Amino acid sequence: MAVDAALDPHAPVTGAVSLMHTLAAAGIEVCFANPGTSEMHFLSALGALPQIRPVLGLFEGGVTGMADGYARVTGKPALTLLHLGTGFGNGIANLHNARRARSPIVNVVGDHATWHKRWDSPLKSDVEAIARPVSDWLRMAANAQTLSADGAAAVAAARARPGQIATLILPADCAWGTTVGFSQPIPVPAAAPPDPQVIAEAVRILRARGSAAALLVRAAGGDLRGLQALRRICAHTGARPLTDMMTAKLWRGSGVYPLTRIPYRAELAVQVLQGVSDLLLVAAPPPVAPFAYPHFPSWLAPEGAKLTSLCHEQQDEVQVLEALADALQAPQVTAPVPLLPRPDLPRGLLTASAIGRSLARHMPEGALLSEEAISNGPAVLAELACAAPHIHMTNTGGALGQGIPLATGAAVAAPDRKVVNVQADGSGMFTLQALWTQARERLDVVTVILANRAYAVLRAEVERVGAQVDESLVAGLLDIGNPALDWVALARGMGVDAVSVDSAEAFDDVLALAMQRRGPFLIEAVMS
Amino acid sequence: MAVDAALDPHAPVTGAVSLMHTLAAAGIEVCFANPGTSEMHFLSALGALPQIRPVLGLFEGGVTGMADGYARVTGKPALTLLHLGTGFGNGIANLHNARRARSPIVNVVGDHATWHKRWDSPLKSDVEAIARPVSDWLRMAANAQTLSADGAAAVAAARARPGQIATLILPADCAWGTTVGFSQPIPVPAAAPPDPQVIAEAVRILRARGSAAALLVRAAGGDLRGLQALRRICAHTGARPLTDMMTAKLWRGSGVYPLTRIPYRAELAVQVLQGVSDLLLVAAPPPVAPFAYPHFPSWLAPEGAKLTSLCHEQQDEVQVLEALADALQAPQVTAPVPLLPRPDLPRGLLTASAIGRSLARHMPEGALLSEEAISNGPAVLAELACAAPHIHMTNTGGALGQGIPLATGAAVAAPDRKVVNVQADGSGMFTLQALWTQARERLDVVTVILANRAYAVLRAEVERVGAQVDESLVAGLLDIGNPALDWVALARGMGVDAVSVDSAEAFDDVLALAMQRRGPFLIEAVMS
Repeated sequence: MAVDAALDPHAPVTGAVSLMHTLAAAGIEVCFANPGTSEMHFLSALGALPQIRPVLGLFEGGVTGMADGYARVTGKPALTLLHLGTGFGNGIANLHNARRARSPIVNVVGDHATWHKRWDSPLKSDVEAIARPVSDWLRMAANAQTLSADGAAAVAAARARPGQIATLILPADCAWGTTVGFSQPIPVPAAAPPDPQVIAEAVRILRARGSAAALLVRAAGGDLRGLQALRRICAHTGARPLTDMMTAKLWRGSGVYPLTRIPYRAELAVQVLQGVSDLLLVAAPPPVAPFAYPHFPSWLAPEGAKLTSLCHEQQDEVQVLEALADALQAPQVTAPVPLLPRPDLPRGLLTASAIGRSLARHMPEGALLSEEAISNGPAVLAELACAAPHIHMTNTGGALGQGIPLATGAAVAAPDRKVVNVQADGSGMFTLQALWTQARERLDVVTVILANRAYAVLRAEVERVGAQVDESLVAGLLDIGNPALDWVALARGMGVDAVSVDSAEAFDDVLALAMQRRGPFLIEAVMS
Repeated sequence: MAVDAALDPHAPVTGAVSLMHTLAAAGIEVCFANPGTSEMHFLSALGALPQIRPVLGLFEGGVTGMADGYARVTGKPALTLLHLGTGFGNGIANLHNARRARSPIVNVVGDHATWHKRWDSPLKSDVEAIARPVSDWLRMAANAQTLSADGAAAVAAARARPGQIATLILPADCAWGTTVGFSQPIPVPAAAPPDPQVIAEAVRILRARGSAAALLVRAAGGDLRGLQALRRICAHTGARPLTDMMTAKLWRGSGVYPLTRIPYRAELAVQVLQGVSDLLLVAAPPPVAPFAYPHFPSWLAPEGAKLTSLCHEQQDEVQVLEALADALQAPQVTAPVPLLPRPDLPRGLLTASAIGRSLARHMPEGALLSEEAISNGPAVLAELACAAPHIHMTNTGGALGQGIPLATGAAVAAPDRKVVNVQADGSGMFTLQALWTQARERLDVVTVILANRAYAVLRAEVERVGAQVDESLVAGLLDIGNPALDWVALARGMGVDAVSVDSAEAFDDVLALAMQRRGPFLIEAVMS
């Protein structure tokens, strides 16, 4: 059963070979994999097909996070290969995040042969039940003959706007069974056009409300055309441009039209939204608090504010904003967004602000920033307004362990761009194995570990929810500094060069060098 | 709301405090935790109650694996604290293993406040759907007043023979809401007695079949009384004593009545079962292959062999075996099991056998062995027949990443016993974060990493399932030696002392020292 890019339509092949040809024809270019025994024929087909690059991860949470990073950067569907229900289980957290990011991902999950399941071997699990909660589309393959059609349907589901998680469960006998040929990809329907009535109503609101109106965008902030349309609208009407707290991809930096991000902390979010009488949701959900608090509302919009949906996620947000700008007869804005000066060399204590200033000094134009740092992220990001234009990607679903894998997948997607990962130490530990993939694939990622050696967000939250704080509790469950993690050793253990610094000057020096060299590098920033 | 071991039954307390008192009264002694924002009141109550020791893990897969180790060693229910559906997701793999081990575990999973869920905040997940596939018992708490009764029911479910996974989902408002008092523990029913008719039938089979009969045990192998009863039966009738491939806990070593373990590899398992006409299942499942193969049966018992269930898992296997021995009028066997000589110092290449011989030389009596090494485990275990009596614990469900956490939990359970973890490098990487907990709690664990730098089991399996092997496939997806993991650096990065050795003599030297000292220590055995 030869494997060839041009498959002889009459030659018998395994189901896995047939599937793989369909996946390649449908545009799959990378397979992030952590395989097991039941995936051997899939691996064999993958290894023989040069169009799909295999990237190995040592843990499934890394694999699914890499797929998210790849999908966010390219907009193309990423493929993962996972092993059984328990392997999928390990990938749930970052699939939850990827789903919130609307990243198109196809998971192929190997399972026992169909006839084997009745024996309830120790490795049997209910793959469908485990996969369903984070899958928008789910199918159990039935046999080798229909497998490639299942693959075509899975890719089409993943590509369906705004991007979905599609999971295809692949019993081993469907992979090793015999078939001929392969299914052609299924075309993806075009986005629904803007709704003229909704646009007309938005024009009315924006003209009537001026600066009491706000537009809340999500995907549009990751597209320079979207930002330009938003700028026209806001310059013409005075409306405020806002972006969702957990936007998957956002252009930022000096010279980029700046949006106001809804803060993670509900009390700050309420301040940002103060005075808004009309909130136009551009395929963004209404702003709500990430968590409930005993004495604080979950709903963040001001009382009486009217929320209007400008489009749904199956529409093209950029097209909708351009249609709105045209309907407003908003003139083109040709003046460049004013540039902000690069910060001076920070000195002294290594604070989040100092780290942010150094990043703003040295991060190259077009860098891809993976940021997972709830406690220190806001202070870093504030400084990055002065950085060269870059794409900011954050944790979209709140499940910890997204940052390192996301950076890894982003670097696979864009080998010519610098990837920077601003990473809290606590959340970094959930999926540190992805550093090994960075070393194996020689990916150009600079990881900055914000080493505060505590679950700092929890130390803050324990008071916010009105729970009693007690020093033994803090020492026992919220302090991760005993023993201190040595991130230089951890990185080197996985083949990634690393250094530790504890002053602003040293950080700036090392970061400057790290931005010049290529390949994975980690800086442990021991914070003051 | 004061927290006190002796709770004033009329004083208002939070639901979390009420729950915690019930859990303590029901015998919960340790809480393995990886908390988040929604668990703050639970943490506050936990921190104030001295009866329950909190043990922090940096990753939920470590937390659930530690709970399994603790439960296996003590037989008592372990408590975990997890955060939302995604945190539970990270714990699924080791809960699958724990469930296969029949370990009693209570998971408390924090969730958003009940009224907050309707807002679908980015961190919302369907906790019930994610938890159900690996939970034998599952309940969503409804309010603070009934929460401690839910806790009592959860512990009772976990303790129900043979041991279950009980998951209590705890919305934040149920934890911070007000109640008074707490629920008393629910008594656990006694085991059902042996069935005289079944015992009589077994007597008939054993007398008629002699050495063509075999008894397949599971939990009984972890109990010296169970082994003694089995010895009486087999000595008297000639029947063969077998133990399940994935037995959770098994006494082994020189002077211990030896059972034949059904091998992982189906072709070897068939050989072991050859000539068996009657297989008596002592609360063990029928022997089946872990995975299906295209040209090999999943069912391993010889054709025509009769399988008879001697008891079900809700019965007491030891009591059943003793009843059977008495019914057979099998005499007490008072002669000690012959001792085997300790191996000589191994020399030269560092092979699995050499590692096994050194372990047999130096492992102290009563050691707890956590073994997760599918490729090299059998060769190591063969040598351990000559070790001092010890308890062998293996991966019961095949989900990788059990060994390090299991050893960690075992050491929490038995601070006076030496814990040894024989750990493959590939599977070790799934949950390496548990090493940090070993350092934090100063646990007496010696970890031996079998560094073959490959997914060796998969290299073997790819041929067994009849898939094509290709060197680029091996290099791309089955070889984890590029770059080589440096386990000494990884261990030190988490505060655990470590050395690397690559000869049999050096391994023996280091192991002897490691067995003498106390506290966590890791030996990277770079295999020949």
